[in-house]
Amino acid sequence: MAFHLLERGREEGRRLADVLAEAMEKIGHCTQCRTFSEQALCAICANPRRDASQLCVVESPADLMAIEQGTGYRGQYFVLMGNLSPLDGVGPEELGMGLLARRLREERPMEVIIATSATVEGEATAHYLGGLIRELDLKVTRIAHGVPLGGELEYVDSGTLAHAFSGRQILPG
Amino acid sequence: MAFHLLERGREEGRRLADVLAEAMEKIGHCTQCRTFSEQALCAICANPRRDASQLCVVESPADLMAIEQGTGYRGQYFVLMGNLSPLDGVGPEELGMGLLARRLREERPMEVIIATSATVEGEATAHYLGGLIRELDLKVTRIAHGVPLGGELEYVDSGTLAHAFSGRQILPG
Repeated sequence: MAFHLLERGREEGRRLADVLAEAMEKIGHCTQCRTFSEQALCAICANPRRDASQLCVVESPADLMAIEQGTGYRGQYFVLMGNLSPLDGVGPEELGMGLLARRLREERPMEVIIATSATVEGEATAHYLGGLIRELDLKVTRIAHGVPLGGELEYVDSGTLAHAFSGRQILPG
Repeated sequence: MAFHLLERGREEGRRLADVLAEAMEKIGHCTQCRTFSEQALCAICANPRRDASQLCVVESPADLMAIEQGTGYRGQYFVLMGNLSPLDGVGPEELGMGLLARRLREERPMEVIIATSATVEGEATAHYLGGLIRELDLKVTRIAHGVPLGGELEYVDSGTLAHAFSGRQILPG
């Protein structure tokens, strides 16, 4: 990309540099959900039509976007900006769990959906969060693990297959 | 493989041909679950220690093997040997659904688990089977669709993400 801009797009390159510098300056975190935002409240938190009875906890702003675009979810979010990783010095406070706990105590949503990744770190974070949320006597759910769409059983790894099997549900009529 | 046998393994080649010919001759289908078997009853159907209260419906003997090796399932199986595909002339009778229905009526398992693939054909077959089994007033479940183990949300397709979201479950404590 750098070579392309140097050879054929010096003007675009300058503009990109300006926009990037401006973004670095202006974009901070939403004070309520911690996603990237230019305002103190991001567009989702500021929208009064979002369903306040559901709160979805995700790892990153990119995951928030993926859920917004891929599902019909219309509730609120909380962005951890990472996963628990004690060896790297990332504990509950670095992930804003104090802020999350305060928010849960005040708003008391009907359901907290933990949508961290299905990786080892994501599972550990989900486990920790589960304990925290249950202590507040709130309903906590986890997104499903299983066979991805289009997936043939024969080619799915055995861990996923075991999860898909133990997570089976009544077939809707 | 053919070149290797011709150059360095004529004897092995002959033995392979014999074994293959013998398999083609001797291996048929289990009369109860339709998987490949040398006997009239396969090793699983003939095993009295298998749990007769659960019946898992799969597409192929390879899927049966994957479930045996990857999960703790210890119930019975039924192998469709394919998926519904009306354009290719594969209807319910070709998949042994008459045999399955008779077996369900006689044995009345507590749960029928549909473990066809998450492909379009697998889903269509699951939908058809669901209707058939519900008519017999039996409990019917479907293996979970969702994020595969190790999967990061950001890289999962939106269909899978939507399924993972709608299939979310109470987080076990």
